Amino acid sequence: MVPGDVYFDNGATTAIAPEVLEVMMPYLTTEYGNPSSIHFMGNIAARGLRIAREQVANSLGSLPSEIIFTSGGTESDNLALIGAATACRKKDPKRNRIVTTCIEHEAVLETCEELKKRGFYITVLNVDKEGYLDPSILDDAMSNDVCLVSVMAANNVIGTIQDIAELSKISHEYGSYFHTDAVQGYTKMNINVEKDNIDMLSLSGHKIHAPKGVGALYIRSNVPISPIIFGGGQEMGLRSSTENIPGIIGLGKAAEISMESMDRDIRLMTKLRDEIIDNMLKINGAHLNGPIGKRRLCNNAHFRFDGFKGTDIVLALSKENIAVSSTSACSAGLSEPSYVLTSLGLSPKQCTSALRVSLSRYNTENDVVRLINAMESILRS
Amino acid sequence: MVPGDVYFDNGATTAIAPEVLEVMMPYLTTEYGNPSSIHFMGNIAARGLRIAREQVANSLGSLPSEIIFTSGGTESDNLALIGAATACRKKDPKRNRIVTTCIEHEAVLETCEELKKRGFYITVLNVDKEGYLDPSILDDAMSNDVCLVSVMAANNVIGTIQDIAELSKISHEYGSYFHTDAVQGYTKMNINVEKDNIDMLSLSGHKIHAPKGVGALYIRSNVPISPIIFGGGQEMGLRSSTENIPGIIGLGKAAEISMESMDRDIRLMTKLRDEIIDNMLKINGAHLNGPIGKRRLCNNAHFRFDGFKGTDIVLALSKENIAVSSTSACSAGLSEPSYVLTSLGLSPKQCTSALRVSLSRYNTENDVVRLINAMESILRS
Repeated sequence: MVPGDVYFDNGATTAIAPEVLEVMMPYLTTEYGNPSSIHFMGNIAARGLRIAREQVANSLGSLPSEIIFTSGGTESDNLALIGAATACRKKDPKRNRIVTTCIEHEAVLETCEELKKRGFYITVLNVDKEGYLDPSILDDAMSNDVCLVSVMAANNVIGTIQDIAELSKISHEYGSYFHTDAVQGYTKMNINVEKDNIDMLSLSGHKIHAPKGVGALYIRSNVPISPIIFGGGQEMGLRSSTENIPGIIGLGKAAEISMESMDRDIRLMTKLRDEIIDNMLKINGAHLNGPIGKRRLCNNAHFRFDGFKGTDIVLALSKENIAVSSTSACSAGLSEPSYVLTSLGLSPKQCTSALRVSLSRYNTENDVVRLINAMESILRS
Repeated sequence: MVPGDVYFDNGATTAIAPEVLEVMMPYLTTEYGNPSSIHFMGNIAARGLRIAREQVANSLGSLPSEIIFTSGGTESDNLALIGAATACRKKDPKRNRIVTTCIEHEAVLETCEELKKRGFYITVLNVDKEGYLDPSILDDAMSNDVCLVSVMAANNVIGTIQDIAELSKISHEYGSYFHTDAVQGYTKMNINVEKDNIDMLSLSGHKIHAPKGVGALYIRSNVPISPIIFGGGQEMGLRSSTENIPGIIGLGKAAEISMESMDRDIRLMTKLRDEIIDNMLKINGAHLNGPIGKRRLCNNAHFRFDGFKGTDIVLALSKENIAVSSTSACSAGLSEPSYVLTSLGLSPKQCTSALRVSLSRYNTENDVVRLINAMESILRS
């Protein structure tokens, strides 16, 4: 990435913010202590860890003691699902069902597959053509055997925002806990674990301008949960391993600065995104996937182009040093049609013609012009 | 840590090497792509990932495809034990026993506790007064119901080096796989997975001058293993999560440079360590814990001081800006007597009088003088 390159793949990963790297640097150089050490070096690391935990807690409206740092969004989802389902069933063996949706991230769906092998029943709910889960569909699926409902705050492919507050309310009516994978939504929509009544929430550093290799799980203090990684008992016994101090410091700072500029950032990304959508849809054979307006995450635009393959467009744009993706980068490079798109009722051909443009607060009007010009030239040639 | 401070707690964590941070910096700034992305930014990240995997493989004498990157030593141990034990029992339900030692790291012992809950039998072998596992004791404990033997390469508290090659040979005679937790030993003793016949080996970045939050597990290609974290299928399906690229790049480089200077570094650390031991033992009431000579890791010195509490000494040295530890920092700040020390037959009082001095290649003669002078003054006052 050099000046002039255009990066529109922020759903896959983001640049570390300069302010974030700045606060990390001491911990990558001189302040390298282990926070469990009782000497001066340990104390400095422990203090940094405490501040970062407060920063993340403040961003969600939780207590610091309800934040567990992990290695990323995937581990957070795994800890939430395996940890809570296992602990809940232990308390009440009748609660052995998990309810989720067909458009969750693989970190949720594959973990549910694993839990099925461990004797849990999994109910996977369908969504509408725009990826939206009608709360009444959740209500119909619920009963007193459900221990956990997991629905993402916003989808990683098509950006659909779910009605988390309503879904959590319904979950609680049946005595179930409610988890949300907020890896894409966090800092790009208003989320407050009190107001939204969320029991567990997964977030990832590298989607919010913090480094890769760090994430967090919010766990409301009353939620029973068992660890999935065992050892020295760090993170209140829930996540053993020497803490990734530079990464955690970065995540804390990224949470803080994202909250400060969130309203402004959302306005900017929404404006640029709508310009992208307006201009893309002028191209012959272009269609928008997913919802329009307020039900769509501010940084997501997702299209399909009749007669083209998404990966071909991605590679052609890449030659112009413009980074976008076909669906999501989370499937380890797989090029199968996205299960998220097929869930919306799209044909395999329509799915493979897909293109995702995902923005960050660092994108500019000029980036939009570069993208649109390049697209027009690629699709015309 | 400022110039003049003395850091002798390298068993807890180490400084990132300047050469390591240097190769990480592009990935912390401009080259922030997701390696699963197919565009130019993804390609740069994927290339870095490939190089790092080769570097770690070269340091162990393995194939790159046998290296799985994790979030650290604890996760590596968990993946090795839970992953292999589960997969082995599935293949052959009669193999449901794991054999380990009483002085393993908590990442092994607590994981064994968890596996006990999942129906495995755990045999915990005793060690001698110097922490050494006599191979004949392993032989006596073995039979055809063992799926996995796990013995650390070198102990984190008292530095005892085990006869890994002999232990793996015995394990294989009974058809069991052999895992070693080499978090402390890696780069500080000769380890080669071919020569030593190792099936799985855990290592950690932050013990070898790479950052915290990254580690690796070597898994010989014929070892059956299941993942413990589920999702997008990264790391050949064994460790889902967007890869921690800057951390992995750092680990690769740290492995490479550690191998280049290993002989020289071991000589330096051994020399300084022996000076520390010689001088410490001149102090009235001082005793060495663990072995002497070649059975002791080059960077470990461990003492007890009659009539003193180890934590008091640590805090007094900390006031002089000298960092050491009482036992290990891996128990999340616990101040109970170390189970490793009680295993050696020491009384609780003897255990609490313990002090660990752990070196790195960055320590100097002057550091040794500072430590010895401070110790004499503290224990005399």
